Amino acid sequence: MRGYTSDKDAVLKRLRRVEGQVRGLQRMVEDDEYCIDVLTQIAAATKALQAVSLGLLDEHLKHCVADALTRGGENADAKVREASEAIARLVRS
Amino acid sequence: MRGYTSDKDAVLKRLRRVEGQVRGLQRMVEDDEYCIDVLTQIAAATKALQAVSLGLLDEHLKHCVADALTRGGENADAKVREASEAIARLVRS
Amino acid sequence: MRGYTSDKDAVLKRLRRVEGQVRGLQRMVEDDEYCIDVLTQIAAATKALQAVSLGLLDEHLKHCVADALTRGGENADAKVREASEAIARLVRS
Amino acid sequence: MRGYTSDKDAVLKRLRRVEGQVRGLQRMVEDDEYCIDVLTQIAAATKALQAVSLGLLDEHLKHCVADALTRGGENADAKVREASEAIARLVRS
Repeated sequence: MRGYTSDKDAVLKRLRRVEGQVRGLQRMVEDDEYCIDVLTQIAAATKALQAVSLGLLDEHLKHCVADALTRGGENADAKVREASEAIARLVRS
Repeated sequence: MRGYTSDKDAVLKRLRRVEGQVRGLQRMVEDDEYCIDVLTQIAAATKALQAVSLGLLDEHLKHCVADALTRGGENADAKVREASEAIARLVRS
Repeated sequence: MRGYTSDKDAVLKRLRRVEGQVRGLQRMVEDDEYCIDVLTQIAAATKALQAVSLGLLDEHLKHCVADALTRGGENADAKVREASEAIARLVRS
Repeated sequence: MRGYTSDKDAVLKRLRRVEGQVRGLQRMVEDDEYCIDVLTQIAAATKALQAVSLGLLDEHLKHCVADALTRGGENADAKVREASEAIARLVRS
């Protein structure tokens, strides 16, 4: 999260909202709410987590990867490979 | 969640674990952990939420949709349509 | 695809359109078109394939699964399990 | 696809294979093959398209984005933003 400090509060706020959504899901299940409504809420929480990921990845490209590429050398290749692998995990999750 | 009572505890347990993962994510961000590691953990939490969805959907087909289809009539069609829409939201989330 | 005969033409038409999109992608690559534009077109083809899946699954629930559930017995459970597994593959693809 | 020339043949080969998969899907539908089997094959074609996307994106980061970042300036920011948007489309497709 180095270099992310400017956005740290925004990321934390989003994650706290996701935590609230997951707690809301538990209440829905405890109250025997209708399955389809629970599924709709899970889709919303999943999308919120995905939005956090995409935001972090954007920052990561802008800062960590950009820094490594500007400096060049082996580390630059490693950073790009690492970012590509993270994108692949994101796409497949 | 009607008809899900048998699995209610299992679903709640899984959702509490996801809540723990999301709290863990907040700690990682607060501690300025490396962005790629945060992304890996978000992918894990997303997969866990997806597994809850798939479990709920399976139960929903087995119980609600099956009941409606056994009884037949207009409600059966409506239940299948509703399930298909939930699947579409799941696939696109 | 039994029971799908009514929609067969529509499904085939959609698949032929996807085939055209994939051939268009080959031309884009041959013509050295800009990578980001190629990615946008791949996303469109992927969405088109997904729409075919969701349509087929909806039909499958309405016909095959509904028939099995109406008849009841072991086969009904097997059909629901099979559908749930197909949904899981769809969500994870 | 500039800068991708080295991989062009590999990308084209993969896309031709996807085209073959989509044609195979049409035959399956024409032959009234079982819906679940068609869904399994669509999932395979979708994964193949996704793999092409991830490969192109990796190359794009390594070449186009890396070049822009090494040169710096406004174009570097634009390239990163464009890549992030392509990743978002990929994740949501």
